[in-house]
Amino acid sequence: MFDAAELGQKVSKSEFKERELDLRSRLLILQYRTLELARFPVIIDFAGVDGAGKGSTVNMLNKWMDPRWLRSIGYRAPTEEERARPRFWRYWRDLPQKGRIGLYLSGRYSRPLLGRVYGGSDELEFDRRLAEIIRFENALVDDGALILKFWMHLSQAHQKKRLDELSADPLQSYKVSDDDWKNHENYNDFIAAAEQIIARTNRGGAPWNIVEGVDLNYRHLRVGAIIAAELARHLDTHERQAASARNAEAPRHVEPVAMNPTTVFDGLDLSQKVARREYQKKMKKYQARLGYLGRKAFDKGISTVLVFEGPDASGKGGAIRRTIWSLDARTSRVHQFAAPTDEERAHHYLWRFWRKIPRAGFVSVFDRSWYGRVLVERAEGFATEDEWRRAYNEINDFESQIVERGILLLKFWLHISEDEQLERFKKREMSPYKHWKLTDEDWRNREQWDAYEQYGHDVVQYTSTQKAPWILVEANSKLHARLRVIKTVTDHLEDRVESD
Amino acid sequence: MFDAAELGQKVSKSEFKERELDLRSRLLILQYRTLELARFPVIIDFAGVDGAGKGSTVNMLNKWMDPRWLRSIGYRAPTEEERARPRFWRYWRDLPQKGRIGLYLSGRYSRPLLGRVYGGSDELEFDRRLAEIIRFENALVDDGALILKFWMHLSQAHQKKRLDELSADPLQSYKVSDDDWKNHENYNDFIAAAEQIIARTNRGGAPWNIVEGVDLNYRHLRVGAIIAAELARHLDTHERQAASARNAEAPRHVEPVAMNPTTVFDGLDLSQKVARREYQKKMKKYQARLGYLGRKAFDKGISTVLVFEGPDASGKGGAIRRTIWSLDARTSRVHQFAAPTDEERAHHYLWRFWRKIPRAGFVSVFDRSWYGRVLVERAEGFATEDEWRRAYNEINDFESQIVERGILLLKFWLHISEDEQLERFKKREMSPYKHWKLTDEDWRNREQWDAYEQYGHDVVQYTSTQKAPWILVEANSKLHARLRVIKTVTDHLEDRVESD
Repeated sequence: MFDAAELGQKVSKSEFKERELDLRSRLLILQYRTLELARFPVIIDFAGVDGAGKGSTVNMLNKWMDPRWLRSIGYRAPTEEERARPRFWRYWRDLPQKGRIGLYLSGRYSRPLLGRVYGGSDELEFDRRLAEIIRFENALVDDGALILKFWMHLSQAHQKKRLDELSADPLQSYKVSDDDWKNHENYNDFIAAAEQIIARTNRGGAPWNIVEGVDLNYRHLRVGAIIAAELARHLDTHERQAASARNAEAPRHVEPVAMNPTTVFDGLDLSQKVARREYQKKMKKYQARLGYLGRKAFDKGISTVLVFEGPDASGKGGAIRRTIWSLDARTSRVHQFAAPTDEERAHHYLWRFWRKIPRAGFVSVFDRSWYGRVLVERAEGFATEDEWRRAYNEINDFESQIVERGILLLKFWLHISEDEQLERFKKREMSPYKHWKLTDEDWRNREQWDAYEQYGHDVVQYTSTQKAPWILVEANSKLHARLRVIKTVTDHLEDRVESD
Repeated sequence: MFDAAELGQKVSKSEFKERELDLRSRLLILQYRTLELARFPVIIDFAGVDGAGKGSTVNMLNKWMDPRWLRSIGYRAPTEEERARPRFWRYWRDLPQKGRIGLYLSGRYSRPLLGRVYGGSDELEFDRRLAEIIRFENALVDDGALILKFWMHLSQAHQKKRLDELSADPLQSYKVSDDDWKNHENYNDFIAAAEQIIARTNRGGAPWNIVEGVDLNYRHLRVGAIIAAELARHLDTHERQAASARNAEAPRHVEPVAMNPTTVFDGLDLSQKVARREYQKKMKKYQARLGYLGRKAFDKGISTVLVFEGPDASGKGGAIRRTIWSLDARTSRVHQFAAPTDEERAHHYLWRFWRKIPRAGFVSVFDRSWYGRVLVERAEGFATEDEWRRAYNEINDFESQIVERGILLLKFWLHISEDEQLERFKKREMSPYKHWKLTDEDWRNREQWDAYEQYGHDVVQYTSTQKAPWILVEANSKLHARLRVIKTVTDHLEDRVESD
């Protein structure tokens, strides 16, 4: 795979100077078009052989382009905060926003590669790590991102020469670490793992490019030219799309719902009730138990994510409040999601939820969540059909990463009948301190009751997985629903705390 | 101080129900006025005796108000990421934005109080910790924030009764920890320290309120009523100000500069030069040395903050690039500041800079910085005279916190002559890849050259402190300036790495 990158290609200083001028202004113009269009982020990764000039290429790009809209990002061993989250949390956190460019060193490929070479991970584990990367890149590419990946190459002989040169120069010898020599000795394993990585993760929208790293001038021009060509192509596509979207000016298309005569909610016995006396007794017991378990979970570093969805006025807020009542307010947090900020809008829709994954031992409660993508955004046509259909899979992947990190994830769907909702809306209208909860939008959503039931049905159907099942809660009786929620949280947390 | 909070005040259940209704709707209305006005954040702190109901009061406020614009925040021992930053980093990070409310448990008073009781800090240290808090609160209050602080009180006898009751109840006994009993035994020391805290940190805009904690109903109504009254008063003031500002509709007032015949820059010999040959030799040497030192500093956890200011085209970007060239891109970051995002605009102006304080061993470079407050914001009238005058002191405080945490802070002012700037502007206009650096605004700023020199003079005068002196760099020769910068960074980092 790498023979073509051992041809000894060189560019003379004078030729470099001449071509640099032209390349530099092209890159700048493309960078500004990207910034102005603001429809996709550009992610540029540098991996490769030690000594092949990854760092110097990043420096050169920083010089060539406008550094205000460019960020260099590198990773080391995960910190305490990073270790408590799913592996990809830090990559999500550092994504450039639409219109901007991120240059990555020692990024998501670095640890799988070293793990494979030094035996930390076997073939199966290596495969799984690559599959994670592919899912991550797919989510971004599907959302429009341009991902460019460079493998900077040196033959083993050239690597030795380079390391010897550096070691002999008293000003540069510090750059050569024992790890570099160790990697050099394992050159063949290193290259074998790299071949697998490149073969498996090379795809349209996220291509690999192998660049010969011996000659500094050649390498810089080559990387710059590839970026310019790929970025120009990507921009053309997106600018055309933007133009045709403008011309069309179609009213928001809301796809007609093929009504399902029965939904998963039809099977619920919404009439279930509980006597107030029994409720009070049990609630007190569960709150006490949960308070105790919450403390234990914190000590053990077990984190919890609770998700609440369901129709307006289904009692999510009340159930949440009573559930977290006995938890330590210093280690639990309720997140509600208003309209996204401009920074949030400039990212993938999952980005703002990734940011709220709790740290070790903490509880994050989501009062409405990433399911907005397949509920309100679907209903209102904010997401295209392709976008919301894809989202089920993206959400399943997101949740499986949460669960795999050892975080307890529980998803509650609180369901009420159409009549019960009407009753509650009327009561809210009359209440001096609850009418803020009721907006015109709520009445509008009510008109789409059947459609929302269908959307909810699809949510349960496509995202109730073994790892992250939906818990459907009959909520016409608030007391019944609250008990059901707190009991479920308590039981699951108990299992987890005691098995851990 | 606490006698008045041991009167045994009680509210019956029926009275509570009646008064709750009214209070709740008042609080909601006030919350919405605050949200709509969006001119100040509300910070509500709960401190006090264990068992006096801090947690339950926070829960009640969450029930009474709209939880979407309310956040409960609590602190535990600092994490790895928090320990690497100045002590107040985490409090800055968690500030609510303008229009929103934060409820704080175990906040900034908690550790100084416990430190005083258990002998971790002596009188002097305690004093210094309180002075830090006062400066923090002053900065926020001066910016319009409302800070309300509650001391929830119980007599020692009532505390014992409360702890006994909880311990005897199998459902609640987990709430009582050994620490609670230890605090109970040290009740008198605890109260003595609390008296000092309250006496020293009680001020307009950030008042303390002592609330008797024995009776749940009384306590909740009392806290709610105080919040309602203080918030109403604060809103009235701000709404009046907003209205009169609207009526005035004055053009931005830019205060006339009383020209100083001589500025600190007049003493600089801008003609200093260096031969290209010497430059190349030395630059190579410094880069090598700095690369080595950067690695050492990372290993030792020594962080660095570099600040660059100076006229447009003074060569900040070039000097930065050459300085960080040899540093590990994974542990160094250059921050440039474009127009603030809406989230940033909704916070204190220092908030976005606090967020970029590097973690342990990292380097943060600020290409322009918080000095914008006293340079461009002053020049353009974005900050009022009171705001920018206050800012010198706020900046000194901010920087001294950085330095006290052990972070290396270096501030470079690159200076060029008016003629040299004109030369460079003209060159930029001609260059195929540099003309983006030149905007109409740059030409406009140039017209204010003398004023900007005066503003810069004031910056140096008011913010060149012993802990964080300005380094003035003669920059008419780019080569000279770059060498000066990298040499200074290298020398300081060397001192630090070797003395640490």
